[in-house]
Amino acid sequence: MTTLSIIGNGNMGQAITAVAQRANTEVQVLGHSDGDVALTGDIVVLAVPHTAVGEIIETRADQLAGKVIVDLTNPVDFSTMDSLVIPADSSKAAEIAAAVPTAKVLKAFNTNFAGTLAEGTVGPLQTTALIAGDDADAKQSLTDVLTAGGLKVIDAGALVRARELEAIGFLQITLAAREQFGWSEGFGVIN
Amino acid sequence: MTTLSIIGNGNMGQAITAVAQRANTEVQVLGHSDGDVALTGDIVVLAVPHTAVGEIIETRADQLAGKVIVDLTNPVDFSTMDSLVIPADSSKAAEIAAAVPTAKVLKAFNTNFAGTLAEGTVGPLQTTALIAGDDADAKQSLTDVLTAGGLKVIDAGALVRARELEAIGFLQITLAAREQFGWSEGFGVIN
Repeated sequence: MTTLSIIGNGNMGQAITAVAQRANTEVQVLGHSDGDVALTGDIVVLAVPHTAVGEIIETRADQLAGKVIVDLTNPVDFSTMDSLVIPADSSKAAEIAAAVPTAKVLKAFNTNFAGTLAEGTVGPLQTTALIAGDDADAKQSLTDVLTAGGLKVIDAGALVRARELEAIGFLQITLAAREQFGWSEGFGVIN
Repeated sequence: MTTLSIIGNGNMGQAITAVAQRANTEVQVLGHSDGDVALTGDIVVLAVPHTAVGEIIETRADQLAGKVIVDLTNPVDFSTMDSLVIPADSSKAAEIAAAVPTAKVLKAFNTNFAGTLAEGTVGPLQTTALIAGDDADAKQSLTDVLTAGGLKVIDAGALVRARELEAIGFLQITLAAREQFGWSEGFGVIN
């Protein structure tokens, strides 16, 4: 059965842990002080700010080789909140895939606020995770965990679509920051 | 009172006409054969495919000067359905603003499927129009019409955010084309 390692025990790490627990999926949660603990999960979720990803990839390069890596970051320029720090024709997920070429990288959760994952609902809707990635088996294994954990899942396409997912995540953050909706509201999917 | 000219009488033109009529707003609808009819509205909605915008701007340059122009296009590469035809760091709305520098350009409706505008609902949600633009008065005048016509409106920020709105519109089209949701479903906003 698929197992998860979640690096990061902040809001997103905790919310995804809650989903995995609803799915009866074994979860290893690693915090800041667990740098020496080896990854045991089949799927590794990087539940950290985009600025922390580089160091994790550097220090855990051997362990990440061949894994399914889930990137949930929104690479927002935190100093201006007015742009992403990634070239316009790329994505953070694409950069991770280039840095760990043997891994199967998925973009997921970056369009979901933590509270909507933890609750499984956003307003009157079931929470939908949008997943982009190039490896069908990796996508299916994450999908199985999430649907068992009470979420809807939509296959957003190949990893190149991470660019659009990051645009959605970025806009959603700017709108919540400007109080156009709350941090447990925002975009939902009707299907 | 604000009046609208809608260029294009396809699905989107008809749907926005329906919203305006619910708002008791005077609407001039111009079809393909009305090339010689002068624009009378304060707000001009370009309810045409992105490929038709250039010719309209060229032939109506004098009439569009100083107007509020609403761009609802999704500049999708129709031959591949896998990318936009606009440079990654720009938007169709930005190109229109550059082509008609005296106009006040708004990006709106490109994240709404026609049926959700006509109905005023998407699934259990009231339909939300996301509007980006640099002119606060222009944004407010369109907002007033739309809220009177039964829509919610969210100010998505400056016109530079059209890039993110076009990413959302593009992804939504690819997902509907791949039957992840129907053409009267898709993204909604909870607030």
